[in-house]
Amino acid sequence: MPPSISPLSKSKTRLIRSLGQRKHRDATGLFVAEGPKVVGDLLSLARPTLVVATEQWAERGARLLAAGTELSVVSESELRGVSFLQHPQQVLGLFRRADMPGGSCELPGDEELCIALDGVQDPGNLGTIVRVADWFGITRIYCSPSTADVWNPKVVQATMGSVARVAVGYCDLPSLVDRLPAGYPVYGTLLDGDDIHHARLSGRGLLVMGNESCGLSAEMRERVTERLLIPPYPAGRSTADSLNVAIATAITVFALRGAATSL
Amino acid sequence: MPPSISPLSKSKTRLIRSLGQRKHRDATGLFVAEGPKVVGDLLSLARPTLVVATEQWAERGARLLAAGTELSVVSESELRGVSFLQHPQQVLGLFRRADMPGGSCELPGDEELCIALDGVQDPGNLGTIVRVADWFGITRIYCSPSTADVWNPKVVQATMGSVARVAVGYCDLPSLVDRLPAGYPVYGTLLDGDDIHHARLSGRGLLVMGNESCGLSAEMRERVTERLLIPPYPAGRSTADSLNVAIATAITVFALRGAATSL
Repeated sequence: MPPSISPLSKSKTRLIRSLGQRKHRDATGLFVAEGPKVVGDLLSLARPTLVVATEQWAERGARLLAAGTELSVVSESELRGVSFLQHPQQVLGLFRRADMPGGSCELPGDEELCIALDGVQDPGNLGTIVRVADWFGITRIYCSPSTADVWNPKVVQATMGSVARVAVGYCDLPSLVDRLPAGYPVYGTLLDGDDIHHARLSGRGLLVMGNESCGLSAEMRERVTERLLIPPYPAGRSTADSLNVAIATAITVFALRGAATSL
Repeated sequence: MPPSISPLSKSKTRLIRSLGQRKHRDATGLFVAEGPKVVGDLLSLARPTLVVATEQWAERGARLLAAGTELSVVSESELRGVSFLQHPQQVLGLFRRADMPGGSCELPGDEELCIALDGVQDPGNLGTIVRVADWFGITRIYCSPSTADVWNPKVVQATMGSVARVAVGYCDLPSLVDRLPAGYPVYGTLLDGDDIHHARLSGRGLLVMGNESCGLSAEMRERVTERLLIPPYPAGRSTADSLNVAIATAITVFALRGAATSL
């Protein structure tokens, strides 16, 4: 049975556009994904509420849709009218966040490596961090309530589909850390940390990363048990400048994973 | 002697806006930088052609300007009219690219670590790579003509001022590599490369990174002498997905710098 093809009504257009705002995403539990790669990754996991696509996508993509899925085949200019991208990419899908990996804040497994984000604001940074986590086999990211919303269309896009494989949950980070088992490492990058090239690292633990301008909150900084520094080169050079938070996350996770595989 | 204060004329507005286009940047040799951090970093290096600022910046910033520098003090809405940012940041400056670190394509020093970009398209990625290079003490980036323009306002912004400390030049990369001294390592990340955690790395060489979708061109791929892989975790997992090029650059440079400091 083919998908159910219907025109793109004004009310659907309004619904899609409204999902640019967090309050509407929260109220409906829906989010927008765009482009063949991202939509394709999500389709392997969940049945969309609605798909809007050009003929170019629909020709091959329609067979990926479960029977009865609502599909609107539109012109490029109609797609531009609902897309959140500067350059719309053939297809846009509405998905239910409840179909994505559970984003609750249960504690990590004892051997697990996971990430906590303490106020990461930029949607592109958050999305890139989810993508990095996915590459490095991290399936759980805890976010402070002050962190950007993972269901923001820009974030979903920047994850390049990884949002289908990584569980992102929002919770109070200090109380999460306080519930971790004794001895579970809490890693953080701090300007007075130990050179990460020489630090003792393990493949388990919680890596906490902070806000783009202010870094970690005082509450989280005092909960870091392993203080790391990604040293500038040459070492000891002025550290007035800084690394982007997604870059610092990637480097630290890479080093932690390397420690695990070289044991 | 104070800077020379003048109103923001229509012709200046037109000049600034025109610099969003490469042909006008090339014709004038000028580029736009925005925000106190980026403009501040550039001011330490060069005298701007023109500065447009709100009173908030001018109050403290005017003293950073050389005598006679043209300054237009404007309202927030006037600044919005010339800014390339979604959220303008107090100040915008026009600078001459000739005052920035020389971007020629002379060969690197024998002990130098440098980067070559073979078709990196996204301005944000290019800017982030320049910033990463700066952190890790790399002062030379060679770009293929197909790589984004470093003087694009979005790139300058994403470098967070690092464009003042890293020389970015455009040249034919294959012929550059062919002129390198024998034995000078050429690093690249390739899906069939050696696990970078265990590969033999040195603190000198040229790291070549490719286009966001297609990776390295065939011509450059065959010139890579040290093939590296940033392994997904767990190792051997499907590598259908990928790391962002700025992330992969950062991780590889981090690993190369670590090799150098642990000798």
